[in-house]
Amino acid sequence: MQRVAIVGLGLIGSSIGLALRKGKLPNTEIVGYDKDHSALSKASKMGAVDKAYSRLDEVVDGAGMVILATPLLAMRELLQALGSRLQPGSVVTDTGSSKTTVLSWASELLPSGVSFVGGHPMAGRERSGPDAAEATLFEGASWFIVPGRGATSAAVSSVVRLAENVGATPCFIDAYEHDAYVAAVSHLPMVISTTLVTATGTSPGWKEMSKLAATGYRDISRLASGDPEMHKGILLTNKEPIIHWIDEFIARLHDMKRMMVEDEEALGKTLVKAWEARALWLTDRDGRKARKARKADDLGTGERFLTLMAGESLVRKGKELLGQDREEPFKERKDQPGGPPAWK
Amino acid sequence: MQRVAIVGLGLIGSSIGLALRKGKLPNTEIVGYDKDHSALSKASKMGAVDKAYSRLDEVVDGAGMVILATPLLAMRELLQALGSRLQPGSVVTDTGSSKTTVLSWASELLPSGVSFVGGHPMAGRERSGPDAAEATLFEGASWFIVPGRGATSAAVSSVVRLAENVGATPCFIDAYEHDAYVAAVSHLPMVISTTLVTATGTSPGWKEMSKLAATGYRDISRLASGDPEMHKGILLTNKEPIIHWIDEFIARLHDMKRMMVEDEEALGKTLVKAWEARALWLTDRDGRKARKARKADDLGTGERFLTLMAGESLVRKGKELLGQDREEPFKERKDQPGGPPAWK
Repeated sequence: MQRVAIVGLGLIGSSIGLALRKGKLPNTEIVGYDKDHSALSKASKMGAVDKAYSRLDEVVDGAGMVILATPLLAMRELLQALGSRLQPGSVVTDTGSSKTTVLSWASELLPSGVSFVGGHPMAGRERSGPDAAEATLFEGASWFIVPGRGATSAAVSSVVRLAENVGATPCFIDAYEHDAYVAAVSHLPMVISTTLVTATGTSPGWKEMSKLAATGYRDISRLASGDPEMHKGILLTNKEPIIHWIDEFIARLHDMKRMMVEDEEALGKTLVKAWEARALWLTDRDGRKARKARKADDLGTGERFLTLMAGESLVRKGKELLGQDREEPFKERKDQPGGPPAWK
Repeated sequence: MQRVAIVGLGLIGSSIGLALRKGKLPNTEIVGYDKDHSALSKASKMGAVDKAYSRLDEVVDGAGMVILATPLLAMRELLQALGSRLQPGSVVTDTGSSKTTVLSWASELLPSGVSFVGGHPMAGRERSGPDAAEATLFEGASWFIVPGRGATSAAVSSVVRLAENVGATPCFIDAYEHDAYVAAVSHLPMVISTTLVTATGTSPGWKEMSKLAATGYRDISRLASGDPEMHKGILLTNKEPIIHWIDEFIARLHDMKRMMVEDEEALGKTLVKAWEARALWLTDRDGRKARKARKADDLGTGERFLTLMAGESLVRKGKELLGQDREEPFKERKDQPGGPPAWK
């Protein structure tokens, strides 16, 4: 019997539990912990875990895989607490939205026999907590995988299987690249959305003007309804790339103002270009989805995740990270006891 | 037989035509014009008008009401062209997203016997053109009404009826107030959305990073897919309030950066406040919708639109604008020939 421990039973942690248990993995026990007793009890009642523990040392005892699904800012302390309790050969993964900071914490705090493989499922909802969890939350979503220094190939594979087992598409990416990209396409939109609500919602005229706010305002402000604690964690663990993109965005806002005042032609062209850029993105996105669906039928499990992201460089990177040329640091270390779950 | 002329048969104009014709108003002919022959022919084929005209002077000939549903920037020229062709007592209304500029054009260019009553239906879609039109587009939406100087009470009433006949909720508002408010809750979100696409979509890393863009990016960028010509018109006819709000927004972005670097506590509080502000707005919005539905059943048509916006000041303003105390400039001028359609 192998044990998978989920630490943090909010939306993401409970959804992982529900999805794994729904898959009825043989010889696998899904256990969970949350420092919030109410979340722990809800997750347990809804069947997100086989067994709920109210103590961290108990939940990770003998676990081959530990999944950290807490807010980012709680992870440093958890990694510190886990360091001495994990068995050699086990794997720790996480679900945080930024990767560089977590990887550096893991490298500093985990013992050398434990592999850290960072993860980032690209799924979420406005509502948070176990009540919002669903077994299907990750279906069709990308699940970014960023192996830590010294992670074994078996550990990496087990996180790939984890993503696959909950219905997501595993994709390899470099930590810096990941953080720079999500800063632009995920964290900047969150900053914008929240700041729109701050700017309008705290203005003296808000009471009257809010009545005129319609679907446009609703959509652009949607991300402001995400979990504030999660957003704080993102902003504090991915500062530099996010600040770079806020500055870039402010520069483009100044461009807009200038064009409104003195260059109507350039303004028109800019609006058309933005229109085109979004149309192209939507088309590419639909195309990728269709290709994903086709390829998933044609390919064997072994290679599937390598080809799911368009772009050869990422496929190369994935092969390299999986250690197919059998070099350190991804060589499997069979001499170690324990080891990550060998799903499928 | 009274004639209602729709000038501009894109999404809004064609949807108005479809909704009015669906309502089978007695003794009313809906006619339409568009300078684009393809739009004119499409709108005609789909039944948005009883008759399509390819000449502006022909479509407004004998019309009691002219609805300008063109891009904002085309309206000045149209008002100039219409000035000499409209019969005394007729009413001109529009559907533009900013009101001060259009009202000043109307005041300058229309003869004194013609009433101008500005309108702004708060409805739209990502797609534009007659193909995207629907008879139900305005159902449940607010339709802002801003009577021009010297507009008769009959003219104002006829535009109220127009909004009601297409299923919208008429709401009175002052032009400056309207433009300041929509700058914050409608135009700023559009600027933000477009600028997000400009900032990210034109960056060198876009090809790779676009693959990581998910539902958050999709929602925040949605307004960038609106008609660029319409957006240009909004930006150029409501410059000052929009620039005020862009500046306000930039100031709040600088706050965010500062808090990320040096004040984690304030950052956390700001994120929580934004979360709360949006939750409150959503609750108020749902409450207003429910009240609207209830009141619509209880009240007579005559007063219904006056009470539909919460806030007594607006109710007072509405009564005043409708000339219920029978003072100039809203006194009905029965001596004039023609006159707006006397729907219901």
